[in-house]
Amino acid sequence: MGTDTRPLNAQDMFEQLARVIEQRRHADPKQSYVASLFAKGRHKIAQKVGEEGVETALAAVGDDPDAIVSELADLWFHSLVLLADANISHQAVFDELARRFGLSGLEEKAARHQDQ
Amino acid sequence: MGTDTRPLNAQDMFEQLARVIEQRRHADPKQSYVASLFAKGRHKIAQKVGEEGVETALAAVGDDPDAIVSELADLWFHSLVLLADANISHQAVFDELARRFGLSGLEEKAARHQDQ
Amino acid sequence: MGTDTRPLNAQDMFEQLARVIEQRRHADPKQSYVASLFAKGRHKIAQKVGEEGVETALAAVGDDPDAIVSELADLWFHSLVLLADANISHQAVFDELARRFGLSGLEEKAARHQDQ
Amino acid sequence: MGTDTRPLNAQDMFEQLARVIEQRRHADPKQSYVASLFAKGRHKIAQKVGEEGVETALAAVGDDPDAIVSELADLWFHSLVLLADANISHQAVFDELARRFGLSGLEEKAARHQDQ
Repeated sequence: MGTDTRPLNAQDMFEQLARVIEQRRHADPKQSYVASLFAKGRHKIAQKVGEEGVETALAAVGDDPDAIVSELADLWFHSLVLLADANISHQAVFDELARRFGLSGLEEKAARHQDQ
Repeated sequence: MGTDTRPLNAQDMFEQLARVIEQRRHADPKQSYVASLFAKGRHKIAQKVGEEGVETALAAVGDDPDAIVSELADLWFHSLVLLADANISHQAVFDELARRFGLSGLEEKAARHQDQ
Repeated sequence: MGTDTRPLNAQDMFEQLARVIEQRRHADPKQSYVASLFAKGRHKIAQKVGEEGVETALAAVGDDPDAIVSELADLWFHSLVLLADANISHQAVFDELARRFGLSGLEEKAARHQDQ
Repeated sequence: MGTDTRPLNAQDMFEQLARVIEQRRHADPKQSYVASLFAKGRHKIAQKVGEEGVETALAAVGDDPDAIVSELADLWFHSLVLLADANISHQAVFDELARRFGLSGLEEKAARHQDQ
């Protein structure tokens, strides 16, 4: 306690980021970048997601792994802003991915047993 | 047990998807879409990420929430293929997001206490 | 006459391309790529323009000038399909560019005198 | 003379724009947007082309024809900046389009006769 420095796992991170986005959503757009995105509206948020896709693609063909990480962080973050603006939970995207790939909470544990 | 149908959480999903991608990575490119992406190489993977960014942006300005979910699933999936091709863990992206937003495993618990 | 092999100038090319696009617009979508784009509609045409933008960007950071030319040809061509679908003349885009940069048919000739 | 207000044709416009871009290329990047693009280099120019592709795609699915014209003007302009940075003439793109569609200076005239 007080020394819990384990890396943030995906579940915690998505929950926290969703909470941060909600907290900043109604902040002063002049003070908060997140608030300014919501204030500008869906078209601007869509544009940002598309632009971050371009930047990620360009980083992907470069030779700097840090740039890939940085651009993906931008891309996923703006994806979460889009979900918030559309009142969709990130869980809906996970459910869609699980459906496509035949993943499940149960299968996951079975798979782990098998692997270990 | 045997009836565990809880939705897949983010941590499980990212781990499982990374495993699926690794399994299919060296499959026959004629049989597996994932294998075909790796076979075509980084430029093709980069292109797919950029294109999915465009499609997500277009879905975002439409009025079909399912389309947003579907395109984000595509976008995040191809993001994971890029990470795999670059030998970068998705955890690196989570760490970057945590760093930017001042999130941590510890803070998370504290924040929850505060919120609840 | 009969041996006029001069390169196609921009004016002739835009006029001819616009004519080709109109001619193919109502062709069988199974026979003509252009017809298939119109048949799929504005969303598909928009997507293609965005995707060609991504491909041009990727070519731009590569080291193959032919790839830049090829991708820009794709990008401009799909731009013209978009204009046709929206019933906008390419002249409207030229007029907008002329307006922004203070260009005109008259100024052009004056500028040439000055330059030469 | 002095009253030549005909719209700028494509050939004149591409020539003039190429000249404007060359003139501004080595200007003070703090004074000139064009100069700032060249100063930032190819990666930035590539990014702008990709981003303008996204914006054009979004305008294309909207219902404002002026937005389509405006975004295409941006897209084509940044395309010309890319060509200038790569020391490629816009004529190379026209030649590629002419090759693909079987157009030529000669055929053009023949086609006109046929049409009229």
